[in-house]
Amino acid sequence: MLSFTCDYTEGAHPLILKRLIDTNMIQAPGYGEDEFCRSAKDKIRRACAAPDADIFFLVGGTQTNATVIDAVLARYEGAVAAHTGHIAVHEAGAVEAGGHKVLGLPGEAGKLRAEDIESYLRTFHADPSKDHMVFPGMVYISFPTEYGTIYSRDELLSIRRVCDEFGLKLFIDGARLGYGLAASPDLGLEDIAALSDVFYIGGTKVGALCGEAVVFPRGNAPGHFFTTVKQHGALLAKGRLLGIQFDTLFTDSLYFEISRGAVARAMEIKSLCASLGIPMYIDSPTNQQFPVLDASQVNALQGKVDFEIWETLPDGRFVTRFATSWATAPEATEELGRIFRSSFL
Amino acid sequence: MLSFTCDYTEGAHPLILKRLIDTNMIQAPGYGEDEFCRSAKDKIRRACAAPDADIFFLVGGTQTNATVIDAVLARYEGAVAAHTGHIAVHEAGAVEAGGHKVLGLPGEAGKLRAEDIESYLRTFHADPSKDHMVFPGMVYISFPTEYGTIYSRDELLSIRRVCDEFGLKLFIDGARLGYGLAASPDLGLEDIAALSDVFYIGGTKVGALCGEAVVFPRGNAPGHFFTTVKQHGALLAKGRLLGIQFDTLFTDSLYFEISRGAVARAMEIKSLCASLGIPMYIDSPTNQQFPVLDASQVNALQGKVDFEIWETLPDGRFVTRFATSWATAPEATEELGRIFRSSFL
Amino acid sequence: MLSFTCDYTEGAHPLILKRLIDTNMIQAPGYGEDEFCRSAKDKIRRACAAPDADIFFLVGGTQTNATVIDAVLARYEGAVAAHTGHIAVHEAGAVEAGGHKVLGLPGEAGKLRAEDIESYLRTFHADPSKDHMVFPGMVYISFPTEYGTIYSRDELLSIRRVCDEFGLKLFIDGARLGYGLAASPDLGLEDIAALSDVFYIGGTKVGALCGEAVVFPRGNAPGHFFTTVKQHGALLAKGRLLGIQFDTLFTDSLYFEISRGAVARAMEIKSLCASLGIPMYIDSPTNQQFPVLDASQVNALQGKVDFEIWETLPDGRFVTRFATSWATAPEATEELGRIFRSSFL
Amino acid sequence: MLSFTCDYTEGAHPLILKRLIDTNMIQAPGYGEDEFCRSAKDKIRRACAAPDADIFFLVGGTQTNATVIDAVLARYEGAVAAHTGHIAVHEAGAVEAGGHKVLGLPGEAGKLRAEDIESYLRTFHADPSKDHMVFPGMVYISFPTEYGTIYSRDELLSIRRVCDEFGLKLFIDGARLGYGLAASPDLGLEDIAALSDVFYIGGTKVGALCGEAVVFPRGNAPGHFFTTVKQHGALLAKGRLLGIQFDTLFTDSLYFEISRGAVARAMEIKSLCASLGIPMYIDSPTNQQFPVLDASQVNALQGKVDFEIWETLPDGRFVTRFATSWATAPEATEELGRIFRSSFL
Repeated sequence: MLSFTCDYTEGAHPLILKRLIDTNMIQAPGYGEDEFCRSAKDKIRRACAAPDADIFFLVGGTQTNATVIDAVLARYEGAVAAHTGHIAVHEAGAVEAGGHKVLGLPGEAGKLRAEDIESYLRTFHADPSKDHMVFPGMVYISFPTEYGTIYSRDELLSIRRVCDEFGLKLFIDGARLGYGLAASPDLGLEDIAALSDVFYIGGTKVGALCGEAVVFPRGNAPGHFFTTVKQHGALLAKGRLLGIQFDTLFTDSLYFEISRGAVARAMEIKSLCASLGIPMYIDSPTNQQFPVLDASQVNALQGKVDFEIWETLPDGRFVTRFATSWATAPEATEELGRIFRSSFL
Repeated sequence: MLSFTCDYTEGAHPLILKRLIDTNMIQAPGYGEDEFCRSAKDKIRRACAAPDADIFFLVGGTQTNATVIDAVLARYEGAVAAHTGHIAVHEAGAVEAGGHKVLGLPGEAGKLRAEDIESYLRTFHADPSKDHMVFPGMVYISFPTEYGTIYSRDELLSIRRVCDEFGLKLFIDGARLGYGLAASPDLGLEDIAALSDVFYIGGTKVGALCGEAVVFPRGNAPGHFFTTVKQHGALLAKGRLLGIQFDTLFTDSLYFEISRGAVARAMEIKSLCASLGIPMYIDSPTNQQFPVLDASQVNALQGKVDFEIWETLPDGRFVTRFATSWATAPEATEELGRIFRSSFL
Repeated sequence: MLSFTCDYTEGAHPLILKRLIDTNMIQAPGYGEDEFCRSAKDKIRRACAAPDADIFFLVGGTQTNATVIDAVLARYEGAVAAHTGHIAVHEAGAVEAGGHKVLGLPGEAGKLRAEDIESYLRTFHADPSKDHMVFPGMVYISFPTEYGTIYSRDELLSIRRVCDEFGLKLFIDGARLGYGLAASPDLGLEDIAALSDVFYIGGTKVGALCGEAVVFPRGNAPGHFFTTVKQHGALLAKGRLLGIQFDTLFTDSLYFEISRGAVARAMEIKSLCASLGIPMYIDSPTNQQFPVLDASQVNALQGKVDFEIWETLPDGRFVTRFATSWATAPEATEELGRIFRSSFL
Repeated sequence: MLSFTCDYTEGAHPLILKRLIDTNMIQAPGYGEDEFCRSAKDKIRRACAAPDADIFFLVGGTQTNATVIDAVLARYEGAVAAHTGHIAVHEAGAVEAGGHKVLGLPGEAGKLRAEDIESYLRTFHADPSKDHMVFPGMVYISFPTEYGTIYSRDELLSIRRVCDEFGLKLFIDGARLGYGLAASPDLGLEDIAALSDVFYIGGTKVGALCGEAVVFPRGNAPGHFFTTVKQHGALLAKGRLLGIQFDTLFTDSLYFEISRGAVARAMEIKSLCASLGIPMYIDSPTNQQFPVLDASQVNALQGKVDFEIWETLPDGRFVTRFATSWATAPEATEELGRIFRSSFL
């Protein structure tokens, strides 16, 4: 059955699998000390225009968030995040298990606003009891957010300015970074590198079997970060698995090609919904689309196409999620169009 | 160059890669809810003769140790382990980062002795200050150990008895379990399942790209272990990657076939050393062999074969490690024989 | 200068000091194994009508909250609390440092509402992603709250009912318990014991030099709680210091007498404000009163009486806090009346 | 009955109690911001000849060790300590609960030897796997040790030199510091301050009701240490309780007077044993003495004097502990002499 449930329903981009096979019998040292990792790091440094970047390959997103946050923050510091941020909701308390509070702020469509962060920080620093409170040590944002939205260049610059003024680090969760960049009119990978203190390039949801590339853009990795990664159980013995995948993703811009394709498919879904008068819960420019369907519409799609029920609105309608990926062929969205039209018209 | 540095220098067993390719476009839900994981679990349950077993697939060994130990122990408990145990030395303090002390005991060739555990527990429980101390909550052993040695059935039974008498759990780190079982005259997978409270079947070092299968043999997983796995950053989004690998490893006994082959190659190295009068540091029956070489011998091998320097003896000689795996062809050990003879005779 | 800044500005109630002197040369074992602790526990059990209660004496409030929460919750659980709850704001992340998330809910005047808790729990349990989230394991409330307000018997019963329905523990932070009970028309210490799974009787802010008595009312202390207390650095070597204080506080109802006196003084302040048309920020029935003063009023009091500026309202006026304690003589509130009248009229 | 079971069997030195009474009604701010703490810190700075020292008052020893170690170490570092060190044995895993491994080394009569530390550090830094291991970040020693022994000036200098060479901090647990200094021929408080990076002056076991004064001798407290103390539940609301006690202890050298008196009493016990041919388990120059008694001797003392059984020797004899304190009158040791002579001769 046609499925748009998420962007990790298939295996890996075929070029990655091919590369795994081609390199399979090459002997390489473990723990990321291999030539594939080295090559992948070089390519990522170039793609980021960050020649001094420290780069580490971890396996998954929650793990990466917990490891980076724990390594960057002091014991008495927490991470400022939107209430809807992944670390605040869907990581089973991994950040707290590492000893750090997630300092939640209200966001808008998944995004933190610079002025809200600033207002929070001013209030904190004016509070005579602040020494009894968790110090805000970093701002955590997702790009794109959990709702598929992206920050504009100006918005990122404003958040950066607030971070600088108050001495906070800026950490960008890029689990779906490619899709965000493909959708952005004014931000490239080199901007993400220039504007953040640390970020990661998501592989799992952009064509890889697994893997997230953590980038400290100015050679600013915390001391012995390798050991911290190990301590968090995030060091892969066969680091080659990550090196080969990222080397492939950053050869001939495959990462960006995958991302552009998926976003193009998502825009086709968006247009489809617009043409049918189906409202969107959030105006997402990336690979996740959130059509609002009523119960009869959801029923009409049963058995024809798979998607996710994201949440239920007070009026009983459903926010659904349709996600695209490298594996979504143009034929798939065309077929979706046929299904929607035959079901709803 | 010929290399015996470790058992994770190549990628994955070809059947695993083939299976990844064959299944690549099948859509499957994430986080281990897919059909491959389900099938793999069924096969493992059968192989363990443990029809009620709870099985979880994690990514790597340190992660698995930290997650299992944290889930099984109470806050005030620690894990009894040999001073040479992997969790005691080479996991960067992952267990302590989770809040638990590793209670180190002297071992013998990497193995804990039941009588030492018992003596420690008797002393602990007789200590009037014990309520000020970390309670021993589990015994952690590796099978095979970090020195390639294995427990006999009687030894395991004795440890089990001590655990039962004092109310401790028994956790078996099976990062290289296949090699241990292939070498054991009296223990099979079903015995490991019957004698432990929790253990894992190592994939990373036995032919997979990554992956460890945690088995709670009698359906005795701690409540919400899935969430604990997530909290530890050990839940893979594309769980299929683990399911497919373990399903392949447990189809037609591939796991055991890989293990037997690697042990056979290791025995050839052992015989080779014996024939040349090269002493072994430890009498290992598994896929890791530890020849003791002097400096001139090490030099003579330079540029011809890769291996690891394990440690330096007081007399200046080197304990070396030669490891075999699924990727070690019989031709490789024959070639090693020629190199040894031409270099040392 | 007259001071109402908080309820811990003086040392201890004179009877406590007298008792410390009288018992000073009596030799007693350490760590709470002494006769004073034993006697104090007996008296508290009687006062709670909880003959099977497990009782432990800890030193301070933040410590007690962190220790109890860590001992009671599983690793994957968090504590539901009002956004204004002490553990959520003013404990420097102690709960998170122990690995647990504080699951913040909006409150009203510092109080959680049963219906808000229930709605949160229903939403949580209906969420298909709940296994990726922190499980709510307990409800934490303060009695009285950080704003001096108290729960009615009906409100507590409703929260208890919700806890029972969803299998959560109820933990009552009683740092100022005495004042709350003195102000309550329908709740006594025995009700607190009957309705909670664990609570503590605050000593520090109710006449003692330090000390909080943790009560598990039905002998339901977690296993080896003594060791958990030690692990949290919360076990006092000279446990007698806590035993003697609580034994004194629970002799001849001193704890309640102190509380009633302080609340009576606070009501005099409340009446004073009412008579002068000074609005209160919150209608607190306990020993903390929150008059809203404008800048000229605050200035007029400078150098005459000490109090705390609690927060600044959007209109520029100040929420102030006047706290009373065992050490607040009737003459002090009379003098405050003279100062207020001469300053404001 | 005459008792020498430990040095915290009585309350506090009478001058401390007197001071608590005299100051009881003085109003003071909480959390250590009071005049008593300020005055005590000044006196301690003078006594340490460390005018820039940062000083914090915590409540108990385990708490202090856990808080200081957590604040000083990076996440990937552990604390080197003797296997018999208090943090390694009798603190219920408080250091591990904070995420740090105790890196145990064999000691001699409770003392670490500089050469053993150096050898361990050389081995660690030569280990090619060291990035997979816990980094040694500090050396923890007790002065005096858990066996009552003390380091000589030369021994301390050697340890300091090793710490400097390898970049480790030196932390001295001074739970019984006064007794160690009273017994030392060549070390004063100013030497402890000059040679360590952080240490604490134990109050609980040297005449106070509770309290440990943490000293960072060169103004080198970690940033926001106050908040870290709060996070560890180690910040006393009525900080005055600690300030008043330490101010008293450091007025007219009371701390040293108490220590000298207790050591003098202990030397009388030592002489008594020597005169009776009773062997000592360890040659302790401080307030704890460890006579080795056989079963009949222990029996003979039953009902006449209280002491601790420290451990049982392989030959069945008992290591006992007799501790003295400020509360041990010369008459008490005279009486002990009479009891020993009448029981043993």
